[in-house]
Amino acid sequence: MPVDACDMQRFTRDQIEAFMARCFTATGIPCADAATVARLMAEGDMLGKDSHGIFRLPGYIGRLKARGFNPIPDIKIVEDRTAMALLDGDNGMGHLIVNRAAEIAIEKAKKTGVAWVGIRHSNHAGAAGVYSNMALKHDMIGLYVAVGSANHLPPWGGTEPLLSTNPIAVSVPADKENSIILDMATTVTSYGKVKVYAQRGLEMPEGWMVGPDGKALTDASKADTGHLLPIGGPKGYGLALIFGILAGTLNGAHFGKDVIDMNADSSSNTNTGQFYLAVDIAAFMGVDVFKKQVDAVIAEMQSSPTMPGIDGVRMPGAGAHAAYADRSANGIPLPNPLLENLASVADDLSVDRLG
Amino acid sequence: MPVDACDMQRFTRDQIEAFMARCFTATGIPCADAATVARLMAEGDMLGKDSHGIFRLPGYIGRLKARGFNPIPDIKIVEDRTAMALLDGDNGMGHLIVNRAAEIAIEKAKKTGVAWVGIRHSNHAGAAGVYSNMALKHDMIGLYVAVGSANHLPPWGGTEPLLSTNPIAVSVPADKENSIILDMATTVTSYGKVKVYAQRGLEMPEGWMVGPDGKALTDASKADTGHLLPIGGPKGYGLALIFGILAGTLNGAHFGKDVIDMNADSSSNTNTGQFYLAVDIAAFMGVDVFKKQVDAVIAEMQSSPTMPGIDGVRMPGAGAHAAYADRSANGIPLPNPLLENLASVADDLSVDRLG
Repeated sequence: MPVDACDMQRFTRDQIEAFMARCFTATGIPCADAATVARLMAEGDMLGKDSHGIFRLPGYIGRLKARGFNPIPDIKIVEDRTAMALLDGDNGMGHLIVNRAAEIAIEKAKKTGVAWVGIRHSNHAGAAGVYSNMALKHDMIGLYVAVGSANHLPPWGGTEPLLSTNPIAVSVPADKENSIILDMATTVTSYGKVKVYAQRGLEMPEGWMVGPDGKALTDASKADTGHLLPIGGPKGYGLALIFGILAGTLNGAHFGKDVIDMNADSSSNTNTGQFYLAVDIAAFMGVDVFKKQVDAVIAEMQSSPTMPGIDGVRMPGAGAHAAYADRSANGIPLPNPLLENLASVADDLSVDRLG
Repeated sequence: MPVDACDMQRFTRDQIEAFMARCFTATGIPCADAATVARLMAEGDMLGKDSHGIFRLPGYIGRLKARGFNPIPDIKIVEDRTAMALLDGDNGMGHLIVNRAAEIAIEKAKKTGVAWVGIRHSNHAGAAGVYSNMALKHDMIGLYVAVGSANHLPPWGGTEPLLSTNPIAVSVPADKENSIILDMATTVTSYGKVKVYAQRGLEMPEGWMVGPDGKALTDASKADTGHLLPIGGPKGYGLALIFGILAGTLNGAHFGKDVIDMNADSSSNTNTGQFYLAVDIAAFMGVDVFKKQVDAVIAEMQSSPTMPGIDGVRMPGAGAHAAYADRSANGIPLPNPLLENLASVADDLSVDRLG
């Protein structure tokens, strides 16, 4: 949600990255790993995923202090075939583990054409698009799916939240156009957005949530009595279920009732599951030919006449590219309440504040 | 849509398969291929996919007579790596080509853990779940995606139908429970269902279609003035776009404006694109352990209390399993208008009628 310019300050990516790295190092994470996590989190901020970048730092630090994350994990491959691997993250920070999974999948796919790496004993890894994007510079398509870190979605027709919003991100390279980055949850809206509506006393549109009576719930202050709705009703439920089985069950990770709400419990091992799929375009056709075709697809979509009041068709990822350009030029805007939290974190860890 | 029992007759799967096989043979398709297509189509009917089984026979025969399908295709692998292949279907019937792709993906995945087969120069292949199900007896998870055979979906915010409903099917084996079969389009409803509503003069629910003014379209008789809506708005658009790129563009198949409406043009090469992904469970964990876990997931979802008026949580594929059991015991019900069409097809081809 946008905030007034006077309620926020901008910082360079370097400032934000360095600040997060020193916080992580102060909690006992080795320097190189701290830098990697800080880089991946800042990348989320650059992509405009404000709820999945530095915003998460206080929560992560709290979890590190409560020993909910293993600061020095032994991330290792526990199953391995030509085009797949299963990675055990040893309860390290999710960013490190998913980053490693993506690297392995990309390396394998260079030989095999397509490769899949499953993950168990991982944790929340921030913005999904950060990882699907990792395939782009290798001229690959990247696909990443995670079991979400809290259950807010009941099975279709049910009332017990047994599913998370289990998100998917897919990145596809283009030639002259921006890459396509689909980064979406399987629910109509996120629980985070509902919380913002509650804070501001706004009424939610119909279709976001449903109450215990099965009717639309639009009063955000009553969000805890209802549930998020999946996209397309039973279809979104089906996607959340299948993504949960592929990212969780198949890897021996938690899924369903055993999912631990990261925000409510800061010390238990979440055993978060994820998977990464890399598809090497060169196995299918000339990379240049493919990228030009993607440009043509984008041009075609954008050539469509629009609905009244719509000024143009947007490609998935357009907002992320716009944020990246703005933040590269002007810095990353952080709201003052977050800055106060970050100052407390810094003081508590006895490291220099952001800036 | 259900029809009255007095308006339909039931036939055994064997009767339906034998009938379709003799029709295809009469158009010049070799016996073995005719039997394969007939088997895969009948499997769609068994799964309750009434609009994607024998219902399509008259259309397919028309296309064969118009030389829109190649009756004796040279289906061959044109790109090949350890864990992927690209198949050129030589404009044969889609059923033959997707069947071959699934076989190759499953065979490769036995060695590599995961394998992906892309398809170009294919055609409509009937019910998607038929193919994702092929992985089950190999203790694999099967995933199948197709570029749909007609564009009914505009990009989000646009009005020009540049996308198809690009469906996905995923099948996951269970132990004692029925397998999970997610078989869904990326639109809220199908165009076929809209046509049924128009025929019967029924009003459509809000959310299925939108008119040229951007407002909900509920008068099914005006369907041709509006467009289908994607699940979750921009999310379903994003999924349809990504599926189209993965199943179409990446394989050198048609996607976007160049998609040929199979029902409006019976002779042009549609260059339909599809892909198949096989995931070998044994690469990740013991197959028995996984299947028991899936049983547990199913039991957990079904244990959820339900919304008022809902008698239980359904798993994706529950309807297909119920149809399979009913049709195994009682035969496949075919409505009389379809039977009349099938009789015309038989007479025209000088083969014995169904029965």
